[in-house]
Amino acid sequence: MAVGVIATLKIQEGKNAEFEKTFLDLAEKVRANEGGCNFYELHVSKTDPQEYKVLEQYATAEDLAKHGQTDYFKAANGALASVVAAAPQVEVLDSVG
Amino acid sequence: MAVGVIATLKIQEGKNAEFEKTFLDLAEKVRANEGGCNFYELHVSKTDPQEYKVLEQYATAEDLAKHGQTDYFKAANGALASVVAAAPQVEVLDSVG
Repeated sequence: MAVGVIATLKIQEGKNAEFEKTFLDLAEKVRANEGGCNFYELHVSKTDPQEYKVLEQYATAEDLAKHGQTDYFKAANGALASVVAAAPQVEVLDSVG
Repeated sequence: MAVGVIATLKIQEGKNAEFEKTFLDLAEKVRANEGGCNFYELHVSKTDPQEYKVLEQYATAEDLAKHGQTDYFKAANGALASVVAAAPQVEVLDSVG
């Protein structure tokens, strides 16, 4: 059963460009390396320019776990620590159908 | 520029099966008829079985508008009125990258 993820990230004022560059590099690597990732797309709120939401889906919970253990994900997390304004909120959901 | 959507639906106790059937029929029609729909997947919360979230993405805002005007979407909305416990919460987001 697939799992969905909504990751909400609050970014410090003035750090948007740096964040977007780091995240889009990560997204490219995810799509290139993770056959078990069905969807992985960055979005920004229409009401708060410092709030981003990543909509994700993985074929299985194992694929999500593998995602979190990749070198490039860990490296991106390290780089993002200097631009986030709060700890990311990650909601994991079970797909239906 | 693509647009993302997170639609949150609260379903009345005992109406889950009816809701899921109606919604999955809708999702099938969306995927079959809307080339501008990049992603359209139903998920359920891991903490509240009455809370569902649809993760969606459309190639353009026009594609999202067209989605809302289809006969089958309007028909499904009508059918869902009897199973929802509250008005759906729909957050529209701008994609990045």
